[in-house]
Amino acid sequence: MLRARQAFLSARRATSSVAAAYYPAEPTQPNLVTETIPGPKSVSLNNELGRVFDNRASYFVTDYQNSIGNYISDADGNQMLDVYCQISSIALGYNNPELLKTAASPQMASALVNRPALACFPQKDYAAILEEGILAAAPPGTNKVWTALSGSCANETAFKAAFMYQAAKQRGSQDFTDEDLTSVMLNKAPGAPKRSILSFEKGFHGRLFGSLSTTRSKAIHKLDIPAFDWPVAPFPQLKYPLEEFAAENEAEEKRCLAEFENVVKSQPPHSIAAIIVEPVQSEGGDNHASALFFQGLRDLTLKHDILMIVDEVQTGVGASGKFWAHEHWNLTTPPDMVTFSKKFQAAGFYFSNPELQPSQPYRQFNTWCGDPSKALIAKTIYQEITKHNLVENTAATGNYLYQNLKTLFAKYPNKVFNLRGENFGTFIAWDCENPTQRNELLLKMRAVGVNIGGCGDRSIRLRPTLVFENKHADLLLEALEHSLKDL
Amino acid sequence: MLRARQAFLSARRATSSVAAAYYPAEPTQPNLVTETIPGPKSVSLNNELGRVFDNRASYFVTDYQNSIGNYISDADGNQMLDVYCQISSIALGYNNPELLKTAASPQMASALVNRPALACFPQKDYAAILEEGILAAAPPGTNKVWTALSGSCANETAFKAAFMYQAAKQRGSQDFTDEDLTSVMLNKAPGAPKRSILSFEKGFHGRLFGSLSTTRSKAIHKLDIPAFDWPVAPFPQLKYPLEEFAAENEAEEKRCLAEFENVVKSQPPHSIAAIIVEPVQSEGGDNHASALFFQGLRDLTLKHDILMIVDEVQTGVGASGKFWAHEHWNLTTPPDMVTFSKKFQAAGFYFSNPELQPSQPYRQFNTWCGDPSKALIAKTIYQEITKHNLVENTAATGNYLYQNLKTLFAKYPNKVFNLRGENFGTFIAWDCENPTQRNELLLKMRAVGVNIGGCGDRSIRLRPTLVFENKHADLLLEALEHSLKDL
Repeated sequence: MLRARQAFLSARRATSSVAAAYYPAEPTQPNLVTETIPGPKSVSLNNELGRVFDNRASYFVTDYQNSIGNYISDADGNQMLDVYCQISSIALGYNNPELLKTAASPQMASALVNRPALACFPQKDYAAILEEGILAAAPPGTNKVWTALSGSCANETAFKAAFMYQAAKQRGSQDFTDEDLTSVMLNKAPGAPKRSILSFEKGFHGRLFGSLSTTRSKAIHKLDIPAFDWPVAPFPQLKYPLEEFAAENEAEEKRCLAEFENVVKSQPPHSIAAIIVEPVQSEGGDNHASALFFQGLRDLTLKHDILMIVDEVQTGVGASGKFWAHEHWNLTTPPDMVTFSKKFQAAGFYFSNPELQPSQPYRQFNTWCGDPSKALIAKTIYQEITKHNLVENTAATGNYLYQNLKTLFAKYPNKVFNLRGENFGTFIAWDCENPTQRNELLLKMRAVGVNIGGCGDRSIRLRPTLVFENKHADLLLEALEHSLKDL
Repeated sequence: MLRARQAFLSARRATSSVAAAYYPAEPTQPNLVTETIPGPKSVSLNNELGRVFDNRASYFVTDYQNSIGNYISDADGNQMLDVYCQISSIALGYNNPELLKTAASPQMASALVNRPALACFPQKDYAAILEEGILAAAPPGTNKVWTALSGSCANETAFKAAFMYQAAKQRGSQDFTDEDLTSVMLNKAPGAPKRSILSFEKGFHGRLFGSLSTTRSKAIHKLDIPAFDWPVAPFPQLKYPLEEFAAENEAEEKRCLAEFENVVKSQPPHSIAAIIVEPVQSEGGDNHASALFFQGLRDLTLKHDILMIVDEVQTGVGASGKFWAHEHWNLTTPPDMVTFSKKFQAAGFYFSNPELQPSQPYRQFNTWCGDPSKALIAKTIYQEITKHNLVENTAATGNYLYQNLKTLFAKYPNKVFNLRGENFGTFIAWDCENPTQRNELLLKMRAVGVNIGGCGDRSIRLRPTLVFENKHADLLLEALEHSLKDL
């Protein structure tokens, strides 16, 4: 059985590549040593973990020190090609040598052992770390950043900025009233106003109380948790292949824009502080929409004095073939805020309008206000991406992969559907017939040494590193063909 | 002027101490090199930072690599005795040699460059890291942990656990209904129920939307941010010295307990999922209450089927003279959940009841589910605290400091009031006459080389490290006397 699974993986020569330069010892193919994954060591370690930590979502227990480049190793020593990458989070591959240098630097040691309350006692090089890293990567039209700790907290601090901005705009030159000051302590209007953040059906923006109120991906993410009664608008459900359904998709996007405006008009005037939207709804099923849709949305937010927050927590930092996925849209007016986390490790939001910084200190504030150890990692990630043209490489690899998937999937029209992500880097996904088939395909892929993840109800999403190259794509395609035959 | 300020600081011999063993080169007194703090380099670096980051809360720009033990250095080279410690967060002193070893370990390098999605791909040593660190420190009666990233997120994940637990209890053996599943996607009951978390006047529990709804410290923390309409109960306002006001304070605590029960009864049955309370309301002004009050609160939560979350984000990890401040209460039934962050760097909540882990995976979930780099730091902090009896040392230093403050403050009865924190480690605070006087005293202390912080409207809180010893206390007392004379 083990030999049979290995047999289909043909031997490959390492070619000249960034991956090869970073990882001279990167495996040339998955290396499977146990009959099943998770293997016995994984199972035993996972049981041990379960005594102290909720381990029920565990795929397998991981040996990170034995993982390398595009290959993740489990505790049993199985090395799998990883196209899921910690839910879209490993930018440069496992044990990247440049990141290891950063991890070993005196700056990192200090950041770890002297963790600063950054807003009160900023370290002397924090401006430089930001300017050479996170801010050098700022999306077009943005030049400031607020650092946070997770995607949820990036989105929620952006929401807070939006609420304070809109309140200040309504208030004009007035100071807070006594009623503001007393009502807010009871969580009541006018001090704690009834404003909202509008989000989209199937969107995912995080798991804390504000962000979860905008998350509309799946009931299981939200059940039993109190939520703000905030509005929701439909997100286009496009049909594939796009070229076959051009007219229908255009009509669908127009319908959604019209419905969006209806929702806005159904709300009290000036009550929607901002919308939040993903360039591709990832957790919700890798749902794309056209640049025209997003431009239409931008126009409507400007018309109605609503801020636009683009959630690039999953789409940002190169995987889409642009550094920021919303750069695909060529918006005439940039988004008001762009949030990030995952591949940058550091989290936060970009903005340009200085009025998104509230008029008084200690309003957008917390103890840490970010984490310099993560900002240092983000800086190296940005610099390596730039040095090695990894965004362009990812765009090229993505095109190669997409075209080959298209050819492959043509052979299995009853098993895989709705291939999407053309000209969108490696940010590629497709549907299976139903959730059961999808889950089976994920397991079959793991059984031949590919770690891969789902999204939505019946979709599979690709989220490889930025050093995923054609040679890795070939292995993925081969494993996929093998698994589809067998499905 | 500079010479005058230095003059009062008498030369001291290093004594045998944990601080001296960790930090042979720790200064023996503050070392001031610029006429004012912030000095010119701080001002210039802060201006630079302001171009890219909200820097308006900055005390001074900090040179962490030149900070050592109990002394924080600014960018100009001024070394100040630090009794604020990154808002109560530096446990073992700056550049602690044992933490530097942890920072340089292969485990740390891997945690930083291969940041895991811990619930899906847990690293093989995560159980061990937890068991030897965060969990070894678990408060009495707790044996499980959920790791998070900040105090806000620790509290909010605890809230989620409480909401899911109470909903499951109400639901019994029933499955989710179709109405649950559809209503929740619209943020409406019954899927997103109207349950609440009750908090206390002047409490502080964080800055995100759920935690901010329980925060009642100051209007400026909350203004313009939508909040859940959750109930609030009064927290005792004790009078000092305690021995003089025993009867009045007892009556005040009884009044608060009665009012708490009134608030509970005013809410729909089973609607309060949990209360959250700090052992000492820190941000809100270092407000203490007696063990009897907290035992009374615990009894009422049990009576009304409400969970009790103790927020030890600021009080936890030794500073109170117990590892967890709520250990001072000797509760007959332990709290349901205890949250932590700050001095542990790692954040999260402890619990014991396995039903606080929801019945399905992916409900208490997010991408990171904690951060092993912080868990490694927490492990070393715990082990060093244990090895060097730092909790006991802190209790002793705190008593020394408290008694000397009492003597000192007797000389300035019109300038300092309400000394509190007796037998509570170094977790000591007092009031000034008004906010202006308080702020002036903070600045005078900084001018003689002591970095110190306020809380509430007119209070000063001490938050030194756990290696703050009598010799440091003497310097603090001397600086305080000098500043009070001058106030």
